[in-house]
Amino acid sequence: MLIYGRNAVLEALRQGQTRRVLVARGVQPKVLAELRREAARVGAEVEEVPRVQLDQALRTTQHQGVAAELPEVETGELEDAFALAASRGERLLLVLLDHLTDPRNVGAIVRSAEALGAHGVVTEERRSAPLSAVVVKASAGATSLLPVIVVKNLARTIEELKERGVWVYGAAPAAAGAVRPEEVDWDRDAALVIGSEGSGMRRLVAERCDGLVTIPMSGRIGSLNASVAAGVLLYAVARARERAAAGG
Amino acid sequence: MLIYGRNAVLEALRQGQTRRVLVARGVQPKVLAELRREAARVGAEVEEVPRVQLDQALRTTQHQGVAAELPEVETGELEDAFALAASRGERLLLVLLDHLTDPRNVGAIVRSAEALGAHGVVTEERRSAPLSAVVVKASAGATSLLPVIVVKNLARTIEELKERGVWVYGAAPAAAGAVRPEEVDWDRDAALVIGSEGSGMRRLVAERCDGLVTIPMSGRIGSLNASVAAGVLLYAVARARERAAAGG
Repeated sequence: MLIYGRNAVLEALRQGQTRRVLVARGVQPKVLAELRREAARVGAEVEEVPRVQLDQALRTTQHQGVAAELPEVETGELEDAFALAASRGERLLLVLLDHLTDPRNVGAIVRSAEALGAHGVVTEERRSAPLSAVVVKASAGATSLLPVIVVKNLARTIEELKERGVWVYGAAPAAAGAVRPEEVDWDRDAALVIGSEGSGMRRLVAERCDGLVTIPMSGRIGSLNASVAAGVLLYAVARARERAAAGG
Repeated sequence: MLIYGRNAVLEALRQGQTRRVLVARGVQPKVLAELRREAARVGAEVEEVPRVQLDQALRTTQHQGVAAELPEVETGELEDAFALAASRGERLLLVLLDHLTDPRNVGAIVRSAEALGAHGVVTEERRSAPLSAVVVKASAGATSLLPVIVVKNLARTIEELKERGVWVYGAAPAAAGAVRPEEVDWDRDAALVIGSEGSGMRRLVAERCDGLVTIPMSGRIGSLNASVAAGVLLYAVARARERAAAGG
């Protein structure tokens, strides 16, 4: 799979995620030099190609003359997330996506999950954004750093997680019974469910949650973009766990 | 200007932002009925048109057969943001965007700013995403609820804000001198600067900030999507002000 754009490619190089960079002939010498320097540092090769070859391979002309070959998103298993948490000696934190259809949101959430200390992102096989190059690009490469798990039935996965002692909280608008993030005890294995961009969590998913968590808002727009909401909740969980660790 | 998609149009109706909805002939009766009900509630008209008319007007076929006419983004002045804060008896909170080029990020940030209690979003005239329909759509209508201010020179605006007693904090990766959001006294007029998606804040902007604020991260990806970072910081400020109000 190819990603493109100068910053995406540089980030992929820095993270050691690509072995092969394609550069259009005629790209600025400064850009080429920077790519060669980063590539040399991690032992990746840089190949100059006609610009039209990038246009065709990427099906866009908005690539800034730079692309890199990435492995496809290698999906993982729930066990990988449990193992990752165990290996770090941390309480599990998963993000469950309920039919998110926007690949940029999915990618941004994987990025936030990795950056803010979660151990995996779970998405349902059907009616969800496919794990395409757009997801990889929006994730800034996080799709290869964090288990991304595709399940057949999210509601069943929630049941399974609960049986294994994981507390499952669904993100919801302010509603009867929904609590603020700081009212939840995050110092235990937990999963956050993020609902779809349009209609939020499905009822059959929300019903299986141990609780609903809501981000306090003061404006007239009563909701956030799905990836922003996920980022805010992941941040709140990270701070709560930090406080628990400091206090314990 | 036209927005499209079933949820975007319903939200625009509920917020009273549109007077005219266009529906493609042949759209599901259930959808049509829901739109008519919401439109009747706010006194908007619903007009049935051939689907191809929507395809052409919107230059996409991904409109789900529904569009609504919105006013263009009406930009405001800094004074509007000061006035909004004063009218609510709140400390000013502004979001300053330093050359954000992705209109979906800009829209998502305006949405978060409105939802989380800020009083305006400032963007620079040049090298920034134009305030297009994509921004309006990504903002879920917040562009018409919050002053969006276009300035000629963001660095000069920062100087002006500082002269008026506003504390300006730039979002930055963990770096020497950068503090965590909870280490900042947000109980005073403040502005948050969000850097561009690729390269962060420009040096001439960062240098003018009173301080740099960083979101603690634990993963290998050391940064968040710009709109996610803005959302997390706005949330942190809102919580800090809430605590200050409760304590004072």
